[in-house]
Amino acid sequence: MLKGHQSWVFENKPVITSTGVVGGPFEANGMLSNDFDLLHEDLWLGQDSYEKAQRVLLEESVTRAIEKAELTNGDIQFMLAGDLLNQLTPSSFACRMLCIPYLGMFGACSTSMEGLALAAFLVNGDGANHVVTAATSHNAATEKQFRYPTEYGGQKPPTAQWTVTASGAAIISRDGSGPHVTSATIGKVIDMGLSDPFNMGGAMAPAAVDTIESHFRDLELPHDHYDLIATGDLGKIGLPIAKEMLEERGIELEDGVFQDCGLMIYREGQPVLAGASGPGCSASVTYGHLLNRMKRGEIKRMLIVATGALLSPLSFQQKETIPCIAHAVSIEAGGM
Amino acid sequence: MLKGHQSWVFENKPVITSTGVVGGPFEANGMLSNDFDLLHEDLWLGQDSYEKAQRVLLEESVTRAIEKAELTNGDIQFMLAGDLLNQLTPSSFACRMLCIPYLGMFGACSTSMEGLALAAFLVNGDGANHVVTAATSHNAATEKQFRYPTEYGGQKPPTAQWTVTASGAAIISRDGSGPHVTSATIGKVIDMGLSDPFNMGGAMAPAAVDTIESHFRDLELPHDHYDLIATGDLGKIGLPIAKEMLEERGIELEDGVFQDCGLMIYREGQPVLAGASGPGCSASVTYGHLLNRMKRGEIKRMLIVATGALLSPLSFQQKETIPCIAHAVSIEAGGM
Repeated sequence: MLKGHQSWVFENKPVITSTGVVGGPFEANGMLSNDFDLLHEDLWLGQDSYEKAQRVLLEESVTRAIEKAELTNGDIQFMLAGDLLNQLTPSSFACRMLCIPYLGMFGACSTSMEGLALAAFLVNGDGANHVVTAATSHNAATEKQFRYPTEYGGQKPPTAQWTVTASGAAIISRDGSGPHVTSATIGKVIDMGLSDPFNMGGAMAPAAVDTIESHFRDLELPHDHYDLIATGDLGKIGLPIAKEMLEERGIELEDGVFQDCGLMIYREGQPVLAGASGPGCSASVTYGHLLNRMKRGEIKRMLIVATGALLSPLSFQQKETIPCIAHAVSIEAGGM
Repeated sequence: MLKGHQSWVFENKPVITSTGVVGGPFEANGMLSNDFDLLHEDLWLGQDSYEKAQRVLLEESVTRAIEKAELTNGDIQFMLAGDLLNQLTPSSFACRMLCIPYLGMFGACSTSMEGLALAAFLVNGDGANHVVTAATSHNAATEKQFRYPTEYGGQKPPTAQWTVTASGAAIISRDGSGPHVTSATIGKVIDMGLSDPFNMGGAMAPAAVDTIESHFRDLELPHDHYDLIATGDLGKIGLPIAKEMLEERGIELEDGVFQDCGLMIYREGQPVLAGASGPGCSASVTYGHLLNRMKRGEIKRMLIVATGALLSPLSFQQKETIPCIAHAVSIEAGGM
């Protein structure tokens, strides 16, 4: 099942049997509001801290996914989840309530596809009948700990990205109907020497390019194999940089094939600067909007390339540059 | 390969072909100094921050393991690593230099066995020829961010544990000679309502017990199957609590079988209060001392039960209790 140097092919075709996608007020006003299972008007979700609100987002998305699959928590063998907060407390605390054996994942915004790749590997390799994987972010909780505390009121440059308040969860099963997870490519850490945490899209673009190139090479695929290659999240600055770098390496993609989750979720005019980001962005866009498009027959094969900026506020203060990573997972319409 | 509800059996017997174990000055003065590949006299490791020192510990342990296996970084398909620092910067930054496709793991001190379980699964399921897994902690870096900043000079109660400065890495391979990884049990998050971060051993004991009980149940093993069941790290307070809880559940272990990595590494008289802890503790004790004992024929079968306290300084400030987890991995002498 290892293919090439850093990729897996899932020959038993694990199925995405259901998903749960929950968002906040900004997402409710965005472009994809119809693709969420549940949207909250209140950024606090009735909790007394943003961190607890983020935990509830995750719990709700997992619970929705399990309900929609007509399963119970006891049917799910493992939960692979992660987020951006210090010591991943929203994910760990959610698992306290959900009572599913838990494997914590960290890859910043690439966590969504790290989790999906490993979940598919476990199911494909007879390690589980059902696995749930989820990635979550909350604008206020994440910006407070990871980016730029909201209460500072500091101005952000136009290259900065806006952390999504959302959780996306997916049940990966051995049998059932739904789209298949067909392969995955695990990324290397790439650091081109950029150090501006307000331009993460630019910093992450080379990692996305390296993983996409490795994916095509490992799987020996033609460059027109996918209807959609969606990064998550390069934003307005990173996406054209990645496109140009791919072309320099001989990977020319047709118009419309190369897109970014961080540029899909919000509406023109929402004050999100260079676009959306956060582990919950690619998770909610993929498990909501993109899988809905696949179900409608608009997409047959897609590659989700989740990108992560692996810095911390402390590493920035210590004048380190930003190591980045990207993991790619291919999803194909069921019955193809 | 799924066995019972939350365990895996590795029928292809992935091999621990080599390990690399690096420690700091406190560990050099401890009981297990002969089991380290490299010991540093300087807590800074020649770096200008403790976080960078922790990154170097990890890099050195992985590099030693790869050299001892007579491999190169390019032979290793994936690196599964984690630590306790915010956004796992030591692990991510180490992968920037090591240039191995990277999967970030988080389970607090249980990270060592989370990584080993998944590494063995990947190799067992034809997902890799060689995987490296590592877990790291640095006393000053970890206590600064995660526990109680050293510079506060606050007094700690006798139930507190001392974070180990160490990194343990292991190469898991499809072929070769060495001990085998034979099974793993992934733990649930257990929270008995304890909230004192200075008594993590007590908080984590029920998680260790739950995982050990699940392991015996899932694998249908007699309770005397293992020569050694080593938790990591319950310390002086947690270990007797766990032993009593196991006995209440009908699991009686012979004298000397049930031990704790956090009580092995330091010498009587070192000021470590209730014992050692940190992701690097169970990793360095297992990949150094315990595998050396296995090679000398003193242990044939052992179960390592790494326990993690999944709190953060912020969750403590918000008056949350401490969710805990434990993952168990069994290792058997090769050629048995």
